Amino acid sequence: MPIPDIDHLVGLVARLPGLGPRSARRVVLALLRDPRGKLLPLARALESAAVSVRTCSSCGNLDVEDPCHICRDPARAKDVICVVEGVNDLWALERAGAHRGVYLVLGGVLSALRGVGPADLNVGPLFERLREGAVKEVILALGATVDGATTMYWLQEKIGPYRVEVTRVAQGVPMGGTLDVLDDGTLAAALSARRPV
Amino acid sequence: MPIPDIDHLVGLVARLPGLGPRSARRVVLALLRDPRGKLLPLARALESAAVSVRTCSSCGNLDVEDPCHICRDPARAKDVICVVEGVNDLWALERAGAHRGVYLVLGGVLSALRGVGPADLNVGPLFERLREGAVKEVILALGATVDGATTMYWLQEKIGPYRVEVTRVAQGVPMGGTLDVLDDGTLAAALSARRPV
Ligand SMILES: [Zn+2]
Ligand SMILES: [Zn+2]
Repeated sequence: MPIPDIDHLVGLVARLPGLGPRSARRVVLALLRDPRGKLLPLARALESAAVSVRTCSSCGNLDVEDPCHICRDPARAKDVICVVEGVNDLWALERAGAHRGVYLVLGGVLSALRGVGPADLNVGPLFERLREGAVKEVILALGATVDGATTMYWLQEKIGPYRVEVTRVAQGVPMGGTLDVLDDGTLAAALSARRPV
Repeated sequence: MPIPDIDHLVGLVARLPGLGPRSARRVVLALLRDPRGKLLPLARALESAAVSVRTCSSCGNLDVEDPCHICRDPARAKDVICVVEGVNDLWALERAGAHRGVYLVLGGVLSALRGVGPADLNVGPLFERLREGAVKEVILALGATVDGATTMYWLQEKIGPYRVEVTRVAQGVPMGGTLDVLDDGTLAAALSARRPV
């Protein structure tokens, strides 16, 4: 299909996460089949998001205002900071209604393999608040991966001198999950973190 | 995440084929993380495609011109018409360089279950050319499904009176495919269509 407009569009869509050339072609066809109902509304929503969405300078969240609606919410405990890897994790915790404090979005985790060092992580706002003595608890909510564990260990070390409570999310059996599909590490962690019922 | 701009965008993306709420959030986040590099270029490509892309009135293909570049190509055999279900099939055959004639995109196949009848299919241009006596061969290249087979049978019946050659694509073992994962129907068809080597 030597049609530059369509080729270009398929190429852009194919570079999005979870999509490839094949699914990109399907998506573009679905859009082209319904220009008024699908294609133009999406174009406009993207355009408008590009103009309005910004990164919260105090937590790294995405919102149309800076500070974001969570940082501005007077009902949220500003002294309980939940550290997450990405905005997707923040969204997941918000959907679960699991956290009533504020967040810090690192924008990644330390990774020797991918060359991510401390300078690449958004930790400035956290240590600023620690220095101000405005923090009671830091919750480390990073993934149970090698890189996640390394990052949590590094943060724990750096936060240590400030004498605030540092906790980390529990590892265990996911809700609705069966034990036999879990890896040994998770099983061991779930067993050792057992609680009386 | 009560952010209307982002919610709206996630909702639109989640309705695209092959995507759901979860993958839509991933896609939208990737776009928002790089407004200049990803988000705006995509918005503009969509906008421009919405303005420029149209459906070819003689074959149903999508192109920036009507008739499309295939129908306008003097090197293509106008009297050999390959009937396909959708533009995706046309694209696949073009990528394979498998057909040197022209196409007819039906825009669907007959389906009692989904309520798709003959009036819903783009067959007008085909019968117009048959009436003009401008057709030598009609190749039925529909999927080997019940609906595809029904549609091919119906087309064969309708084309019969025009006394042109009607062929259909061979069924068989896909290139690179192993026999043991194929269903019985495909295996039987592949065996009965065997050729000397
Ligand atoms: Zn914030
Ligand atoms: Zn055409």
